[in-house]
Amino acid sequence: MHYFVTGGAGFIGSNLVDRLLSQGHHVTAFDNFSTGQEPFLLEAGRAANFSLVRGDLLDVPVLTRAMDGAEFVFHLAANADVRHGTLRPRFDLEQNTIATYNVLEAMRSCGVQRIAFASTGSVYGEAQVIPTPEDAPFPVQTSLYGASKLAGEGLIQAYCEGFGFQAHIFRFVSILGERYSHGHVFDFYSQLLRDPRELHILGDGHQRKSYLYVGDCLAAMLWAIEHAHGRVNIFNLGTPEYCQVNESVDWICGHLGLEPHRIYSGGERGWIGDNPFIFLDISKIRRLGWEPALTIRAGIVRTLEYLQDNRWLLERR
Amino acid sequence: MHYFVTGGAGFIGSNLVDRLLSQGHHVTAFDNFSTGQEPFLLEAGRAANFSLVRGDLLDVPVLTRAMDGAEFVFHLAANADVRHGTLRPRFDLEQNTIATYNVLEAMRSCGVQRIAFASTGSVYGEAQVIPTPEDAPFPVQTSLYGASKLAGEGLIQAYCEGFGFQAHIFRFVSILGERYSHGHVFDFYSQLLRDPRELHILGDGHQRKSYLYVGDCLAAMLWAIEHAHGRVNIFNLGTPEYCQVNESVDWICGHLGLEPHRIYSGGERGWIGDNPFIFLDISKIRRLGWEPALTIRAGIVRTLEYLQDNRWLLERR
Repeated sequence: MHYFVTGGAGFIGSNLVDRLLSQGHHVTAFDNFSTGQEPFLLEAGRAANFSLVRGDLLDVPVLTRAMDGAEFVFHLAANADVRHGTLRPRFDLEQNTIATYNVLEAMRSCGVQRIAFASTGSVYGEAQVIPTPEDAPFPVQTSLYGASKLAGEGLIQAYCEGFGFQAHIFRFVSILGERYSHGHVFDFYSQLLRDPRELHILGDGHQRKSYLYVGDCLAAMLWAIEHAHGRVNIFNLGTPEYCQVNESVDWICGHLGLEPHRIYSGGERGWIGDNPFIFLDISKIRRLGWEPALTIRAGIVRTLEYLQDNRWLLERR
Repeated sequence: MHYFVTGGAGFIGSNLVDRLLSQGHHVTAFDNFSTGQEPFLLEAGRAANFSLVRGDLLDVPVLTRAMDGAEFVFHLAANADVRHGTLRPRFDLEQNTIATYNVLEAMRSCGVQRIAFASTGSVYGEAQVIPTPEDAPFPVQTSLYGASKLAGEGLIQAYCEGFGFQAHIFRFVSILGERYSHGHVFDFYSQLLRDPRELHILGDGHQRKSYLYVGDCLAAMLWAIEHAHGRVNIFNLGTPEYCQVNESVDWICGHLGLEPHRIYSGGERGWIGDNPFIFLDISKIRRLGWEPALTIRAGIVRTLEYLQDNRWLLERR
């Protein structure tokens, strides 16, 4: 199979590229390197059946040419920064919503009809039902990021109905693991490297969040694509647990052997639009036969170990 | 109050403009006249507190200048053609999703924080729960129109959370009445004017649909804006009934005194993405104290009478 991976030089994308190549597939990675990293594709670059196209999803001709010959699209490219959406609302609109539209139109041009999409648990807003199932009550959006991903989901679904596409839509919790390059573990570790005596924590530390290890995330996506055959297949991806930010801090500090003074910004939410309790119901994909291998704690430790071995990622900013 | 009405020269928009002017408000109508009609604003044009700006919502500088001084935005402008979405997917993206984003950004620029939005029951896709309440299970989109309106809803909700806006989002069934200028009554009447002996009907005629009279629609919106004070207020607007396409044909033919031969295109759906059963649960707005005055049948007859008196509307195409 010839896979086209948008965001192929990113955290999840580059891990997916390696996995697909290891299975003998042909892979084209497409990335604008706004957050993607060339080192993530060092290994892939040595594979004969790999090609990389440097381009932006807003550039339709380049995108369409790059997709020529592909049979399946993994659309992972996105502005994944949920926190700063209000600073530049156009960015979510362009990089998530319009970019997804461009991917779909390129697929139509190239005759590709299968797409997997990295959506987010943020589309549930502040869910009324927790753990939140895929058919939770019609949500109200609380972030520009969630809204832009919801728009992407809707477009993909409409293309399935209107143009006979098949889609696998995955609503992720936060993903952790090798090549992780933004998020709370990254922020906390960076802070502690600069000053091991102090740790600034957004909110009151009681926010409850879910995390999934990237290896489990890839396994879940590939499992669902192989075993779910509807026209529009929607799956939450997460672990059957959540943790408090404070627990995560305990694990991180424990692993590093540090006991910093914790300074809280205060409030139930870390930022405007922050969801104080994210916990997705993953029964649907478990019923399909998939189980996560790593706990949240193991995923956080694995992530820290990766960052300790790859300090260049922290220094790049 | 100074109201800014996008799509102010359209079917619902121009009726709203007249209503707001009759209540003594200041009104600015904004329209690109892609489907809006100058005659709809003849009466409004004689009011001192009315102004009309001819412009497109994709033209941000013109939009922002036009909105200066407004206090409340009714965002009604849209590509309202659900049927031909697959012929030009970009149109829904631009005129519904991106246009809504531009309206929100113009509001930020102008310091306007209140918006009412004409959304659609199409956002429920093929609803699993009928009659469909506002908190129905998270829907799957089946049309580009529905997807583009869902994206608009999500953006508006995110602006409420991120920028302190207040929104009233209305999910309409099909609206009928004076200045109605597209839809099945329009199509059937046009056909019967050309040839009273034959009527071509999309689908098998058993599709069940809901309709609301435009006067009731305006009353409901104004009632909800006055009486619902949440940050994001979402209401279905419809009647507590539905009809089959065949019943509607009976009423139309009965009113016109015609008995055409009915020719069905066949199939459960009138077109790709057509929803064979639309019936919204309107308990929420009824609990707020609003009731529709006209039945579907009365609304259809009122629409026909209007079209009979305004044949220019049929000839314009």
